[in-house]
Amino acid sequence: MTIVQYPTYTLDELADRLNARVIGDGQRTVSGLATLSDAGPHELTFLANRAYLKYLPATKAAAVLLHPDHAEECPTACLTLDNPYLGYAELSRLFDPLAARYRPGVHASAVIAESAKLGDNVEIGPQVVIEDGAVIGDDVVIGPGSVVGADSVIGAGSRLHAHVSVCHGVVVGERVVLNSHCVIGGDGFGFAHDGSRWHKIAQLGGVVLGNDVEVGSCSSIDRGALGDTVIGNDVKIDSQVQIAHNVQIGDHSALAGCVGIAGSTKVGRHCMLGGGVGLSGHLTLCDGVQVTGMSLVTNSIHEPGVYSSGTGSMRNALWRKNAVRFKQLDELAKRVTRLEKK
Amino acid sequence: MTIVQYPTYTLDELADRLNARVIGDGQRTVSGLATLSDAGPHELTFLANRAYLKYLPATKAAAVLLHPDHAEECPTACLTLDNPYLGYAELSRLFDPLAARYRPGVHASAVIAESAKLGDNVEIGPQVVIEDGAVIGDDVVIGPGSVVGADSVIGAGSRLHAHVSVCHGVVVGERVVLNSHCVIGGDGFGFAHDGSRWHKIAQLGGVVLGNDVEVGSCSSIDRGALGDTVIGNDVKIDSQVQIAHNVQIGDHSALAGCVGIAGSTKVGRHCMLGGGVGLSGHLTLCDGVQVTGMSLVTNSIHEPGVYSSGTGSMRNALWRKNAVRFKQLDELAKRVTRLEKK
Amino acid sequence: MTIVQYPTYTLDELADRLNARVIGDGQRTVSGLATLSDAGPHELTFLANRAYLKYLPATKAAAVLLHPDHAEECPTACLTLDNPYLGYAELSRLFDPLAARYRPGVHASAVIAESAKLGDNVEIGPQVVIEDGAVIGDDVVIGPGSVVGADSVIGAGSRLHAHVSVCHGVVVGERVVLNSHCVIGGDGFGFAHDGSRWHKIAQLGGVVLGNDVEVGSCSSIDRGALGDTVIGNDVKIDSQVQIAHNVQIGDHSALAGCVGIAGSTKVGRHCMLGGGVGLSGHLTLCDGVQVTGMSLVTNSIHEPGVYSSGTGSMRNALWRKNAVRFKQLDELAKRVTRLEKK
Repeated sequence: MTIVQYPTYTLDELADRLNARVIGDGQRTVSGLATLSDAGPHELTFLANRAYLKYLPATKAAAVLLHPDHAEECPTACLTLDNPYLGYAELSRLFDPLAARYRPGVHASAVIAESAKLGDNVEIGPQVVIEDGAVIGDDVVIGPGSVVGADSVIGAGSRLHAHVSVCHGVVVGERVVLNSHCVIGGDGFGFAHDGSRWHKIAQLGGVVLGNDVEVGSCSSIDRGALGDTVIGNDVKIDSQVQIAHNVQIGDHSALAGCVGIAGSTKVGRHCMLGGGVGLSGHLTLCDGVQVTGMSLVTNSIHEPGVYSSGTGSMRNALWRKNAVRFKQLDELAKRVTRLEKK
Repeated sequence: MTIVQYPTYTLDELADRLNARVIGDGQRTVSGLATLSDAGPHELTFLANRAYLKYLPATKAAAVLLHPDHAEECPTACLTLDNPYLGYAELSRLFDPLAARYRPGVHASAVIAESAKLGDNVEIGPQVVIEDGAVIGDDVVIGPGSVVGADSVIGAGSRLHAHVSVCHGVVVGERVVLNSHCVIGGDGFGFAHDGSRWHKIAQLGGVVLGNDVEVGSCSSIDRGALGDTVIGNDVKIDSQVQIAHNVQIGDHSALAGCVGIAGSTKVGRHCMLGGGVGLSGHLTLCDGVQVTGMSLVTNSIHEPGVYSSGTGSMRNALWRKNAVRFKQLDELAKRVTRLEKK
Repeated sequence: MTIVQYPTYTLDELADRLNARVIGDGQRTVSGLATLSDAGPHELTFLANRAYLKYLPATKAAAVLLHPDHAEECPTACLTLDNPYLGYAELSRLFDPLAARYRPGVHASAVIAESAKLGDNVEIGPQVVIEDGAVIGDDVVIGPGSVVGADSVIGAGSRLHAHVSVCHGVVVGERVVLNSHCVIGGDGFGFAHDGSRWHKIAQLGGVVLGNDVEVGSCSSIDRGALGDTVIGNDVKIDSQVQIAHNVQIGDHSALAGCVGIAGSTKVGRHCMLGGGVGLSGHLTLCDGVQVTGMSLVTNSIHEPGVYSSGTGSMRNALWRKNAVRFKQLDELAKRVTRLEKK
């Protein structure tokens, strides 16, 4: 149960924004968005997946956003649209209470270096720190306790949630969303070994995030050793992700939670990495590669497609027997070869 | 070596709190708790596992908490109790220096919105931010630099350590412990793809944490897309855990470090997930499921028990041979079938 | 593209610092460090790996740090040195703009407890909190928003980046680097189960970090239950790493990103754990163990060497077939045995 207040719209207003068609009373107002089964009489809902069609007849929603093909089955008012899932995405942003809460200004407790430059209509929250030479674009929102390091640039329209750390010399594009506790530009993991101990290699590169990038909570993108770590436009990065120094991620790729990418690896455009995927260092993944959850990739991939590693889960009692056999697998294969030769 | 000061108790006082029996001088004081082998003459220790019985005769502790069966073997004073491990848990809380350090009040550097409500006896640390409409229950402790977002509720007796982010519209139960740098209510990972690029789905749900929940350092629990992410009562979550949007976790379940759970998965009551376990999205795990460390679960589990995936570790030279054979495993099985047919 | 300013040196100055030999004009100045292919005419570069020798003839750098064997092939001035990679490490620190930005003093917005002790030449950033009894050594830098808990000690010359949480009763050695959002001393994951619910075991131990330790962004090192979690000297820990209570890591070991180590495990000296490696609890790894990426270790290792688990990645279509066979592997092995008996 959340107590956040949602904005209110008429169906006509929403149809106008979404370029959708209203069937029913366009003056009816809706003040929230919910699922087909949860929506109440003041809320809007949507049908974007046939699996949920069974919930349509009984919905209590004020109105349903759906494909025109399903309009006849709808027991209440409709907004019809060719791609209802995209329509839902747009609706969700219209109903986002955070958007309504936007309040330009700089909180008195924020510490802004004299040499920092703030754009128009920025909202700088309490306890924020903005260091020397940082440049904050127009319409940027910086949440409580976030830090923007020296000489870093935050592009117009970006939002940093609470406790974000953008380190020094980082370039963040426009309309970027950085969730709480992500770190952009921490030191890469670089040390030279002299045979007995480690010597730190100062990480002199930066990080460049393209436009429309999103980074999840507690994710870290390390700065380059020399040259930058580069995240392309429209790259979406989930929570608890680690991206090492000098990695490059192509435009429109998406990385699910807990992904880890080792140093200098290049991921192509339109790639998708499942949760917990690991990529070794110095690899190249071409455009259009998908890797399924918790797979480890240790070689470059030159053809688009879906890749996997690991084993499926099973009862532990069975797994133990199979896992023991895995340790003898090469030997087993040789035994089969010997049998074949007989 | 730590320099924290522990509280001091007499054995009689402790016996009274634990409902234990003293054998020896009840007026003897103890000012700390340590293991059988480490405890010094002013400290209390405990024996809760037969594996450590060998250390009992030589202990230098002032007194030992143990089962009555072992009292005769104890070289010093005893506190006897049927379940010494539970007794140890209770003792540990009595000796916790953090509990002794409780100092109600609001630090001058904290920024508290006028519309926020603070309960009785709260302790609000330096640099804290509490946003509009937040409600802080009685006896809550909020550590340095933590942020409580708009309209969020923190239940009575809860403790937020340093740098905790509770985002907007989150409900935290009573007696909850949130360790440093955990994020409750960051955006879930939701985007609609239009064939060429991603469109953000604003995450309009919240997070509800039950009573007696604990969340470890640097863990993240994402807010729901529509409807809430729900963590039951007495759920224990370790460090570096990622819980995606609209996940539900049943009461009394425990998740070890580095677990990742994808969106909309439901975990039952009294489940235990080992370190690094991954659960795919939209699954259901029934009550009483245990998953061993670093296993990946991609299908729902309908019977309680222990489940595993993966392979055991071995010398890399052997592993390389076996891993190559794994890539030919289907072919190997077909070869065996052909041999059998002969 | 980063806009950070690098320091400037003459080649003679650098040769003096590195104990290198200049070939060419020692008065030439360089104001940055870059790769062989990226370096411009005001920058220094280096050759430390034969794989990059092909870029040497065309480099546009002002000078190249390299082994004397390659001096003749160098088209511009050289600094020659027997171990150019170590030389690069040292150069990188000389060109580190953060080092140049060092500004002793305590920011007005920092909250420092009266009983805390600050050494000479400390730099305490904005919004920092230093609690009762904490001791900050000479030349320590504490970045914006970091918290040092009660009774904790930060050794001389250490640097805490932004938003670091050092909890109470933690001892940090000298010249330690703690990257943004790491947590040193959060609660270990300890609960006693009474058959129906969990009882918290307060974590009374601390954490001790040796000298020259580095901890990456968003990593967490939990405090001991009783007794300390101990990280040896010169241990290097990457980002998103989780180290549980009472773990011990020997000197000079290195842990790559996303490693997770369960409670009470002891890792020897000069060990190397690849990215995403998991170690179960209560294990012992001897000195000189290497574990490859994403392997799970569930048994102690008593001989140095390289260890692995898991399977290599492959096309998903092939993987599905092989993974199904893995579930039948014990049965397959029995079938082969039956065939052999015939």
